[in-house]
Formats: sequence, C-alpha cells, structure tokens
Amino acid sequence: MIDLLIEKIEEKQNPTVVGLDPNLAFIPTIIKEEAYERYGKTIQGAAEAFYLFNTKIMDGIKDLVPAVKPQIAMYEQWGTFGMDVYLRTIAYAKAKGFIVIGDIKRGDIASTATAYSNGHIGQVTIEEEKFSVYKEDFITINPYMGYDSVEPYLEDCKNYDKGLFVLVKTSNPYSGQLQDVDLVEGGKLYEKVGALVSEWGEPFIGKYRYSSIGAVVGATYPEQGRKLREQLPHTFFLVPGYGAQGATAKDLAGCFDKEGRGAIVNSSRGIIAAYSRPKYKEQFKEEEFVQAARTAVLDMKKDLEEVLA
Amino acid sequence: MIDLLIEKIEEKQNPTVVGLDPNLAFIPTIIKEEAYERYGKTIQGAAEAFYLFNTKIMDGIKDLVPAVKPQIAMYEQWGTFGMDVYLRTIAYAKAKGFIVIGDIKRGDIASTATAYSNGHIGQVTIEEEKFSVYKEDFITINPYMGYDSVEPYLEDCKNYDKGLFVLVKTSNPYSGQLQDVDLVEGGKLYEKVGALVSEWGEPFIGKYRYSSIGAVVGATYPEQGRKLREQLPHTFFLVPGYGAQGATAKDLAGCFDKEGRGAIVNSSRGIIAAYSRPKYKEQFKEEEFVQAARTAVLDMKKDLEEVLA
Repeated sequence: MIDLLIEKIEEKQNPTVVGLDPNLAFIPTIIKEEAYERYGKTIQGAAEAFYLFNTKIMDGIKDLVPAVKPQIAMYEQWGTFGMDVYLRTIAYAKAKGFIVIGDIKRGDIASTATAYSNGHIGQVTIEEEKFSVYKEDFITINPYMGYDSVEPYLEDCKNYDKGLFVLVKTSNPYSGQLQDVDLVEGGKLYEKVGALVSEWGEPFIGKYRYSSIGAVVGATYPEQGRKLREQLPHTFFLVPGYGAQGATAKDLAGCFDKEGRGAIVNSSRGIIAAYSRPKYKEQFKEEEFVQAARTAVLDMKKDLEEVLA
Repeated sequence: MIDLLIEKIEEKQNPTVVGLDPNLAFIPTIIKEEAYERYGKTIQGAAEAFYLFNTKIMDGIKDLVPAVKPQIAMYEQWGTFGMDVYLRTIAYAKAKGFIVIGDIKRGDIASTATAYSNGHIGQVTIEEEKFSVYKEDFITINPYMGYDSVEPYLEDCKNYDKGLFVLVKTSNPYSGQLQDVDLVEGGKLYEKVGALVSEWGEPFIGKYRYSSIGAVVGATYPEQGRKLREQLPHTFFLVPGYGAQGATAKDLAGCFDKEGRGAIVNSSRGIIAAYSRPKYKEQFKEEEFVQAARTAVLDMKKDLEEVLA
C-alpha cells in the first residue's frame, strides 16, 4: 500500500494529506442550513452537515492532493449517524481517487485488536461469508500495549495490502510527558517505539524502500523528526502539526529524505477551515470555503516545495 | 461516580464487572438463528445477535453483578449496525441498574479528545442544544499522548460526574514491552503513568477515599499490582486478566486494599461464554448459556471471596 501512496504523492507532486476533522464551529452556515432543513437541528442534521462539507471539500481539492485523513472522533461523537458519515466519507474519498488514512488511533489486544483490524482494514466473517466494512487504506494505531496489540493489524496489512501509522512522537504540547522519558537501556521512549515500528515493518518494505508500516512523527518537534528520519530509513512518516498547531515547513523538512520522499504532511483546519483564517478572510467569503481550501492547499504545496527543493 | 460504583459493589457484595465482548464464535445457535431470521446472515443480523445475546446475559446476572463493560471494538467492527447495538446495550444495561464501563481505550488530543469525551461521557452541542450520546458511566483511555490527551475527559468527569480508567499496566503478554521499561528518573514507565493518574485524580477523590480517575491494572502481573496498590492508595483499579487470560483470584488479591476495596475485576468470555468452557460443558447445554453465565458469576464471586476474606 505504501507504494501506491508514494506514487499518488509523486503524481500530484504534493506530499500533503488533508485532515477531514469537521467541526460545527467552522462549517459554513449555507451547509448547515441545508442539512438542518432536511434533518433538523439534530445529531443527524449535524452529521449530514459534515458529509455535505466533506464532499464539497474533496471535490474541490481532488486534483491537488493524494490523500485524505478523516479523524474518526469527529464522527464517532454523533453516534450511529456520525459513523454512517465516516463510512460514506471514506467511500466518497475512494471513489474520487484519494488514498484514505483513517485516523482512529486504536490500541487493544488479542481478539479485540482483531475486531478493530478486521472491521477497519481487513474483513469480518459472518457464517463463512466475508464483508469489508470501513475500507480505509491506512489506519493509525497506538503502541502502548505492546506487540500483541499490533500483530493482528500486521496480519491484515499482509492479507489485504493495507498500511499502518503507529504513534511514535506525537505533535501535541505534552507528547514528551511519556514519549520523551529517558530509558536506562539508552535513548528515549519514542526512539524505542520507533525502532519497534521499523522492526515490525521490515516484511512490508516496498519498491521505493519504504514500509507500509509507518510512524506518526509530529512536525512540532523538528529535532526529533530529523533524528528519527536518520534512525528509521525505511519508515514512512505521517507528519501532523503543520499550520494550525504551529509548525512551519522548515520544522518538518527533516522528516523527509534526501530525495524529498519519506513523509506525508497533514493539515486539517488549516485547509478545510481556511476561509475563516486571518490569512484568507479578506479574500474569501464564507460561501467560498472550497476555493479558500484550494488556495490553502496550493499555498501549502508551495511552502513545502521551497524547503524540499 | 466512583462512590456509586463502590456502593453498587457493596450492595451486590461482588467486585466483578462482566465484559460484554460478544463473538459470533460463541453466540449460541438459537440466538444467531433468531437474529438471522429477522435480518439475514448479514452485518445487521450479526449485530442483532450480539444485542439479543447481551440482553439475555444481562437479564440473567443483574441481581449478582454491579457493572458491565462492553468492549466497543466488538461492535465497531460491524459499522453503524454495531455502533447502534453498542448504544442500545448501554441503554439496556443502565435501565437494568448496571454501572457501565465503556471499554473504548481512546487516546487523542485537543479538539479530538474533546469530541470523544463529549460523545461518550459528556454532551455534544448542536446550535446551543445539548445531547447525550453514548452515556457510559466510565470509559477507559490510553495515556501515551500525555496530559493534554486526558484533560478534556477530566473536564467532563467533573461536569457530568463520570469516571475514567487509564491504561497503566495492561494484562496482555507483551504489556511489558513498553510499560515495563526502566526509566533513568527511576522506576518503570507504568509506575510513572500510575503516579500521573493518581495526580490527575486528586480532585476527584470521593467519600470512600477513592478517585473517579482510576487505573487499568492487569491481574496477570501480581507483583506489579501489589506494588501499585501500595503506591496509589486513592486510585481504584479496573483489573482485567482473570480467568480466560490465566490469572487466578490469588494473583489479583494484591490489587485490593486491606478492607477488600479498591478494585473491580473483569471477566468477559469466562462468564458470557461459560457454557462452552470445559468446566461447565457437561453441566449446561448451549441453550442454557444464561444459567451457565450465572453459575460462572457465582463461582467467580466465591473464588474472589476466598482470597479477600
């Protein structure tokens, strides 16, 4: 699966993934009104507003961006209506040619991990018949419980040609509270996790020397990103933290290799809520949120190109 | 919320939570046939088989057990049908007087953690109107991303009188891979996490000297359980690993305090699939799965009583 992601990135000449993390606070009124008119100011109405918003955003950027990353929490909060929109968002994204990274950050063991994995990237079995449910191409997972919480996903990655991004060094302010602790055996916890991810990923290395088992490495920690890039030459990075969380293109340059490969950079609100950002507010009205998103994608592309040149 | 859990445990004289982790492999044929007849051998049929099974199990043990713990992965794998059954299982459990611990092990930051928290234990807001969605009493969460991935839940615990169990030392074979690493600052990673959980929980200490912010501590690691019990006198433990995962009552005795309080022990398949276990196979037919579950609950209760006396 990593080969396909790398090829899509090259095709679009853009190592960007757009995070589909909608929030009612920035969904344009015109979208909300349409959804509320049909389904009321209800949970269903809110969920449908997300779907309408996502499809319009995706239509507007599909020629520019190789991948989207729906954040499942934003949908899960609306119960079954939200999960239905999560599923339909994935289906729509795939129909439009995007690679889909499901940002689910699941972490559990044995039969539980198997259930998550079968549902999201594998297949569930009902009386010998198999069904694909969520159909993401990649998902994010949490490593705190150790190898047996990862193994079922590796199995499905092999059987269904899928990929993972395992949390290694996250972009949030307190990520160091546990991830940066110094270990008696040497190095920091996130480095140990990085080494494990690399080891787990060895059987999944594709034709561009990167593995389908990747790592989440936050753009907000440039030094750690650079070090991890050196230590993990075959591990592809999903890099959050650019834009809204404060990291610049220069901060994340170290996550890429010398050929300008090896990472895909996420921006969520920075793109999908661009119309409301100070930078674009003058230029675009609320109804022009798609054009604003498109402009933000192009600006981000240029920004990344400058440091990766 | 912890006070209520402790009072329910005393009322039933039974520190047991029954894990509702159904699996088609052990749902009795009579239940599956009923669900398939109505909804086909489909995802919906499978999800409805889970619901039928859960309600029968809950009806059969409601006088014996203070709490149930649905494992969301088992439902999430079936997409929206599964999530609907997860929601209805919670509603049914609460109507029958159980405390509900949602085993969701979520872990994410900022607006994402807020979405999970609002959906599961708080309220979501749609144009100033508030809605409760999942309505668990407690949920489990993953600490790997640090304090800012926990803070939104603490806020909702305060506002809605709910509780958490944070993963500290899990019961699985590889839990030590990261959790047991020795830290330069002293102690092991899980001990550091335990200390943080205790610190986060201080404002939530109730009338029985335990906090609504608890910890997951696996029964399969008796030495660590005993040590954590000493180090964290105000942290209530959710203890998985008894029975199917191999831990005995003696192994987990150290998770309790001298008054026999401070922990609740989970058993999932050991109870809900009791009819299929060697121990009960002779005594119960498949259709008698509820009586088998009831007997398994009573046997577990006796087993715990013996070591806690």
